[in-house]
Amino acid sequence: MEKSAEDIFEGFKEHSIAEFFKRNKQMLGYSGKVHSMVTVVHEYVSNSMDACEDAGVLPSILVSIKQLGDERYGISVDDNGPGVPKKFVGKALGTILTGTKFHVYRQQRGQQGIGAAGCTLFAQITTGKPIHVTSSTGGDAYSCDISIDIGKNKPVVNNISQSDRKSKGLSVHGEFDGIKYENSEKSVFEYLRRTALANPHVEILFSAPDGKEYTFTRSVESIPPPSKAIKPHPLGISVNDLLDFARISSSRKTSVFLAETFARMSPAKVQEMSAIVGDGIMDKTPKELDWSSAESLIKAFKLVKWIAPDATAISSIGEERIKAAIENILSPEYVYIVERKPQVLHGGIPFIVEAAIAYGGNSGRKSSDDEHAGSIMRFANRVPLLFDAGSCAITEAVKAIQWKRYGIDIENRPVSIFVNVSSIYIPYSGVGKEAISKEEEIVEEIRLALMDAARGLQKYIGGKQRVSAAKTRYRTLMNYAGQLSSDLSYLTKIDKKEIEGSLERLILKHYPKAKESDAEPEGEEEKEKGA
Amino acid sequence: MEKSAEDIFEGFKEHSIAEFFKRNKQMLGYSGKVHSMVTVVHEYVSNSMDACEDAGVLPSILVSIKQLGDERYGISVDDNGPGVPKKFVGKALGTILTGTKFHVYRQQRGQQGIGAAGCTLFAQITTGKPIHVTSSTGGDAYSCDISIDIGKNKPVVNNISQSDRKSKGLSVHGEFDGIKYENSEKSVFEYLRRTALANPHVEILFSAPDGKEYTFTRSVESIPPPSKAIKPHPLGISVNDLLDFARISSSRKTSVFLAETFARMSPAKVQEMSAIVGDGIMDKTPKELDWSSAESLIKAFKLVKWIAPDATAISSIGEERIKAAIENILSPEYVYIVERKPQVLHGGIPFIVEAAIAYGGNSGRKSSDDEHAGSIMRFANRVPLLFDAGSCAITEAVKAIQWKRYGIDIENRPVSIFVNVSSIYIPYSGVGKEAISKEEEIVEEIRLALMDAARGLQKYIGGKQRVSAAKTRYRTLMNYAGQLSSDLSYLTKIDKKEIEGSLERLILKHYPKAKESDAEPEGEEEKEKGA
Repeated sequence: MEKSAEDIFEGFKEHSIAEFFKRNKQMLGYSGKVHSMVTVVHEYVSNSMDACEDAGVLPSILVSIKQLGDERYGISVDDNGPGVPKKFVGKALGTILTGTKFHVYRQQRGQQGIGAAGCTLFAQITTGKPIHVTSSTGGDAYSCDISIDIGKNKPVVNNISQSDRKSKGLSVHGEFDGIKYENSEKSVFEYLRRTALANPHVEILFSAPDGKEYTFTRSVESIPPPSKAIKPHPLGISVNDLLDFARISSSRKTSVFLAETFARMSPAKVQEMSAIVGDGIMDKTPKELDWSSAESLIKAFKLVKWIAPDATAISSIGEERIKAAIENILSPEYVYIVERKPQVLHGGIPFIVEAAIAYGGNSGRKSSDDEHAGSIMRFANRVPLLFDAGSCAITEAVKAIQWKRYGIDIENRPVSIFVNVSSIYIPYSGVGKEAISKEEEIVEEIRLALMDAARGLQKYIGGKQRVSAAKTRYRTLMNYAGQLSSDLSYLTKIDKKEIEGSLERLILKHYPKAKESDAEPEGEEEKEKGA
Repeated sequence: MEKSAEDIFEGFKEHSIAEFFKRNKQMLGYSGKVHSMVTVVHEYVSNSMDACEDAGVLPSILVSIKQLGDERYGISVDDNGPGVPKKFVGKALGTILTGTKFHVYRQQRGQQGIGAAGCTLFAQITTGKPIHVTSSTGGDAYSCDISIDIGKNKPVVNNISQSDRKSKGLSVHGEFDGIKYENSEKSVFEYLRRTALANPHVEILFSAPDGKEYTFTRSVESIPPPSKAIKPHPLGISVNDLLDFARISSSRKTSVFLAETFARMSPAKVQEMSAIVGDGIMDKTPKELDWSSAESLIKAFKLVKWIAPDATAISSIGEERIKAAIENILSPEYVYIVERKPQVLHGGIPFIVEAAIAYGGNSGRKSSDDEHAGSIMRFANRVPLLFDAGSCAITEAVKAIQWKRYGIDIENRPVSIFVNVSSIYIPYSGVGKEAISKEEEIVEEIRLALMDAARGLQKYIGGKQRVSAAKTRYRTLMNYAGQLSSDLSYLTKIDKKEIEGSLERLILKHYPKAKESDAEPEGEEEKEKGA
């Protein structure tokens, strides 16, 4: 019953990437009803923020969700960004793997060109309906319907018409089935709340399916400095990358090509390189470089001392903004913020870790009516990561900390642990971008940030406990002091108040903080220092 | 400083899937040096097994790894399968998203058409070298080099020549850099050991980079019954799926199309359908079906009572084979195997869960020289899953069990928990297929299997403990009995042996198992029942 190779290969075919994701939509984040809804909102909202920031506009984003049937919802996202030119809109929303961001070496939330077209695909396979788009780039406004020719991964654009939209921006509306709105830790509301937390310059209006309206106001009135496109650092690229750059270079010599293509490649460094690899390679045209010459260059890169990569291209949130946002949204009793210096992934990709620990107020998550439990808020380039925590470098780092040593019970106390990783290239663990791959360099850097933050909170809690212990002792001693003063007064005939007064002074000398008013926030001193 | 949409969209481009995975190779399993090496071996070995089984051949697979430099290795996998016809070899190994398996509704290890071409891509971007292939499909044998034109996702085939390979099969050799061989829980050796465990009909020879040679022998001499291609079940498809089938149908009527396309669609069922949706829809040609007619059909599907999907298309391992394999490889003291009945995912996709718990012998993993800790072995369609445990339905189910209740300390005892999920469609959580997405139906089914297995082991351990407690009491009592007999004999002048004899009979009445020989395996009775 043996079968031949010819029989087996009869059905051999090539498939489109749209077809692949249609069959494996869980890989894009479309698994589970609540999760699927968050994925749609996430894709549209992060695209909107990228577009606004690209155009230098303070983002105002309106998210509106209406229930249309049992598990059917209409989701609309409207922004005040630059809009999408009519001739690009089909591909932007109707072809998987297109975009402006793929080849540019700068920080963006989106980087794949999959998300928005993935939403179109998801609408189409659950309701058969196209996405409806309205946009204006400043001149004429238009609207149209977009779907995907799945077998070919090509856009199908219909019903193009003029629109009376007045303001610049993009509005996308889709209808989706098999999804669900829920008020949980992993819901659209929580996603937007965390988005506001990590993006204090964004205003988000949210109209929920239950009729409630929420506004996340801006706590900062300026957009973060735009992320610059930078040249790649010599230590961050592979032989294959070098050859890719060489192939599209029009320089006449490799020496010129190196200086033009890579960061930190001063004339002096080019000379150092020449001394190592020889003029034979440096005088070649870049297109003549073969694997072994490129390998020699990469090896030489590793022998030269370089200035670290330019981290100004990375736009982290910043201590002040994190503070403003956390106070705005969590109103914590105490917050400690850590902004680490830029670090380097794989030798040449700069990244920055920011961490914060908030305590009390609305920190943590409600575990019952009056109980709060700890909560970990993960962000990558300011985008909240709500799912697949188990695969994430941030979770790994949180687990690596012995919180008990710092006297912090993250399971049962109102603690919010906030971590944001910013980079030109975030190594996500999956296409759905729900977790940061557990690269050692990233995990370690987050761990260091969290240790620092944990020490901050430890001091505060320690201070609080010391004050509270001192108060107890003060009260106990003062009880004895009262009795003792009476007895001594009876024996010595000295006035009881006088004795009590000197005893109290004696006690206060040892427990100076014990008599402070309860109304005054405890440990305020540390708070100022920490925040 | 506002930028216009036109400025922003200047760089708008379409990208190839090969380019995407080149930039995000961690999504294919190429993250970490040890992990990357396992990924290469995994892709080639599972393709080889699929090919052999497809052709009806007992698989013999040779894996050979040689260290060529610091982190550079040559990896070869050779099989006795049907081989690959010359005209398909380029696409099969040099284009991402091609294959024979994508559209067929049957169980296979591979299902994406990404893995082997992913290896080619990984070789290319780490060493610049093509993959070298030798194959024979029975007639002429050939060899060639294959790489990928990454920008276009097209194969580049070079150096095609005749080969003197005598036997049918495929041999693939690649050179990879930035990878590492290691002897750990997540290594190539462990991957192959687990592959042998779940595939007792496969013979694997492994030549390790340290010069050691390992043979995993067959414990079963027959290939599993070939998985059949089946028709999809009406309850397992979406409106969109139905329209996809309708579009390629050449039937003249929808009624005929339904009967031809779907499982369990007898003439009686077609009539039931007609009664619900009306002849208007049933008489249309399938190509005329629009979303709303298709939606009516899908709704009608849900109103009709169907026989469950045909699970004969699923090839699970089977109790006997699991037993043979576990005894062959783990030599446990005790093993309990559970094979659950077929269940249905999303209403129409059949799947089968098999679980086993092995105890003692080489079960578990060595935590120190003479300590063993528990180990979870995850499999999907008999392929070992070594990475990304946190995202996996199997891990979720293991965590959901309160092992202490069953008296099983899975952290610190020599326990191997074995779970294999078999299905025509496994919902992997990522492109790298390293974890099964946490679909509720799958997690619950695994949980039930594990509870059953845990009860089995509990009985065995309980029995062992009872026997051991009885022995202790027997010994203690017999000590007293000896002294008592002497004393009584002295007082009554009755023979000491007689008294001792009747006392022992009395004691044995209460602890019947206590005198059994130590040489006899304890709890054998339960073992026979369980295994």
